[in-house]
Amino acid sequence: MAATMDYPAHTFDELEPGICFKTGPRTISRRDIDQFTELSGDRTALHSDEEYARQTPLGGLVAHGALNLAAATGLAYRMGVFEGTVLAIRSMDIKYDRPVLPGDALTLQLTVSEIDPRPRPDRGLVGFDAKLFNQRGKVVLSGLWTVLMRRAGAPPAGQ
Amino acid sequence: MAATMDYPAHTFDELEPGICFKTGPRTISRRDIDQFTELSGDRTALHSDEEYARQTPLGGLVAHGALNLAAATGLAYRMGVFEGTVLAIRSMDIKYDRPVLPGDALTLQLTVSEIDPRPRPDRGLVGFDAKLFNQRGKVVLSGLWTVLMRRAGAPPAGQ
Repeated sequence: MAATMDYPAHTFDELEPGICFKTGPRTISRRDIDQFTELSGDRTALHSDEEYARQTPLGGLVAHGALNLAAATGLAYRMGVFEGTVLAIRSMDIKYDRPVLPGDALTLQLTVSEIDPRPRPDRGLVGFDAKLFNQRGKVVLSGLWTVLMRRAGAPPAGQ
Repeated sequence: MAATMDYPAHTFDELEPGICFKTGPRTISRRDIDQFTELSGDRTALHSDEEYARQTPLGGLVAHGALNLAAATGLAYRMGVFEGTVLAIRSMDIKYDRPVLPGDALTLQLTVSEIDPRPRPDRGLVGFDAKLFNQRGKVVLSGLWTVLMRRAGAPPAGQ
């Protein structure tokens, strides 16, 4: 796995406001949308009924917002920044800015916006300004992710 | 599909603060977690490495937070409230309150918290206080969902 990572792992202590990571692209396929429909159980027509979706202003099936978020978390994993240092994701405030269509290629940018060392001596909270872009550089999803991360010298995540 | 819905469809005009919907349960399986790992690309050890996860305080694999959110959207679909009346999900502010383990059975409760008729004559914004409970009645995910919904008499969603 580690060989495919774009950045080295970062502990809480190596992060400060303004540090920015970017990883991608990942293309969303029609198959991804169909699999997400099955897995989530969200069969809303715009995501699952091609004939219906073709008559809407978007002209075809659109990815579920929660699928775009899922893809963003996969890109965050691929960054490598969190490898062995993420303890938990506390919260995500998400705006679904634009629709994602099959074939769109998504890139995730995470910028550290705040750090809070208070929770415990071995861990701290990191706020990331998250932006997911499509291949035209337009933001499709944005928001604040708050992540509990291990401090340098603390035992590996979760132990 | 409609036969399995728990409530009739609601337009914007039929919703007001305090109205509450509840649907479930849906059980999260180990297979759901494995499929979400593949689909999202998030291979964080706590969600994908059984041997590693067994040594953590949780004692085994835990569902990805974004999978819990995906399951919540599927339950929202199953409610029936949004059938043909949801135009778009604008935003979701999500707290991941507790871990979800394989075998946990999740129930979604959505309570209308605010309504805003301003966007356009044919649609309005509805804020839902979302709570996802496990089989012990503990909240595993919570937050505010803001949904753009069709008004009574407007053409079907997306057209």
